[in-house]
Amino acid sequence: MRVTFLGTGAAGGVPLYGCGCTACKRAGNTPRCVRRPCSALVESGDTRVLIDAGLTDLHERFPPGSLDAIVLTHFHPDHVQGLFHLRWGKGLRIPVYAPPDSEGCADLYKHPGVLEFRALAKFEVFTLGKLTLTPLPLIHSRVTFGYAIESLAGGRFAYLTDTAGLPPRTLAHLQSWRADALALDCSHPPRTGPANHNDWTLAAEIVSSIAPGQAWLTHVGHQLDEWLLHTAPVLPAGTTVAMDGDVIEVAGRPGHP
Amino acid sequence: MRVTFLGTGAAGGVPLYGCGCTACKRAGNTPRCVRRPCSALVESGDTRVLIDAGLTDLHERFPPGSLDAIVLTHFHPDHVQGLFHLRWGKGLRIPVYAPPDSEGCADLYKHPGVLEFRALAKFEVFTLGKLTLTPLPLIHSRVTFGYAIESLAGGRFAYLTDTAGLPPRTLAHLQSWRADALALDCSHPPRTGPANHNDWTLAAEIVSSIAPGQAWLTHVGHQLDEWLLHTAPVLPAGTTVAMDGDVIEVAGRPGHP
Repeated sequence: MRVTFLGTGAAGGVPLYGCGCTACKRAGNTPRCVRRPCSALVESGDTRVLIDAGLTDLHERFPPGSLDAIVLTHFHPDHVQGLFHLRWGKGLRIPVYAPPDSEGCADLYKHPGVLEFRALAKFEVFTLGKLTLTPLPLIHSRVTFGYAIESLAGGRFAYLTDTAGLPPRTLAHLQSWRADALALDCSHPPRTGPANHNDWTLAAEIVSSIAPGQAWLTHVGHQLDEWLLHTAPVLPAGTTVAMDGDVIEVAGRPGHP
Repeated sequence: MRVTFLGTGAAGGVPLYGCGCTACKRAGNTPRCVRRPCSALVESGDTRVLIDAGLTDLHERFPPGSLDAIVLTHFHPDHVQGLFHLRWGKGLRIPVYAPPDSEGCADLYKHPGVLEFRALAKFEVFTLGKLTLTPLPLIHSRVTFGYAIESLAGGRFAYLTDTAGLPPRTLAHLQSWRADALALDCSHPPRTGPANHNDWTLAAEIVSSIAPGQAWLTHVGHQLDEWLLHTAPVLPAGTTVAMDGDVIEVAGRPGHP
């Protein structure tokens, strides 16, 4: 199973419009440091699934027929806004699997165009080609699912954005599931106060609790990038801060099917 | 007054995703024939106003401070989706003038970020730098305003999308106002049946009724481009089908202030 981080940014991305911090200036001068809307492409054999649709150039990145499905974590604009254009396509249908959110986003349900929305239920496994996916409830301001994704060819990958902590049942599921790779919301540097996303401290705790083979932090805000530049903290073993364009190969570990 | 057609496309744009018609194939091979979300930049002296925000790269096109305001015709996604990213900016405020639509689009009102929404009232004139604007009700599936825009330096420009026909009071206003230039919704080739946009026939009638110095047809769908390729109809005098990037200078006519 191959995972491509198409976007690793928090809402607003990096550089943040109008911001002059070191991280935003660096991204303004270094394409490799730009963070676009958080999303990933998951491939296994000839199966290709896009997780989240916040990139606004999906119609240019993915020619008709090149995606088996889109799977949404939730309906915030930075995770679905690419659908506003894609939906008006012609001569194809695109299945879009999503949490059971009765509102959706703007008029997507009213005018779905070529999109076929299919509401998922928590913990109810579904199959897309060579991938099986289990929706895992997360903790966010809208109904949000992470996904435990397994390839028939081997390899277990958990994708968990957007969230602030994990519900007990989701955590328990992941602790027994033993992910080979984990992508986890880590939007902020260490901080206190109410949260809608993981900060660095909470993300590190979750990585330790789940103990995946490898962990990738994503949904990164400019303040976290800035903090990383100035603090250079020691990352937990096997943990990487993902960048746009990073590609990882997820293979099963000994003891996995 | 200078007007730049930043986008001249109907929802879905040209090329339409997945479409193989002659117009979509041509646009796929000819950047000049691409039609992006319908929007325009209006400038007079150092005043710069963006009409509609459907382009998703506004944060790249317009550095902080380069726009005096954004003026919206209505809250359909293809006219506002660029705001989803722009709003998370830092260190600036962007006034966004809009029709009185209590819902807005998605969570723009709930999380406006740097956007300052200001609801307009029909026919109540407002001033932005060297421009005065009069909101004109249009006929569309959401509350929608066109704008009669006058430069203090001379020149009258009417921008009328999205609409199917014109309400009597709007038409009367424009007939007495004598626009030097008109940009008008013309989404479809001649057709029958219920409409949410002008077709070619209705647009031509409106141009004749208003009798502007020049008319530019915009919000063009791929079927209209296809029809124009195959039919080559005679355009009404002084009328042009706008293309993305077209720039027009609007000067006052004799008898205007």
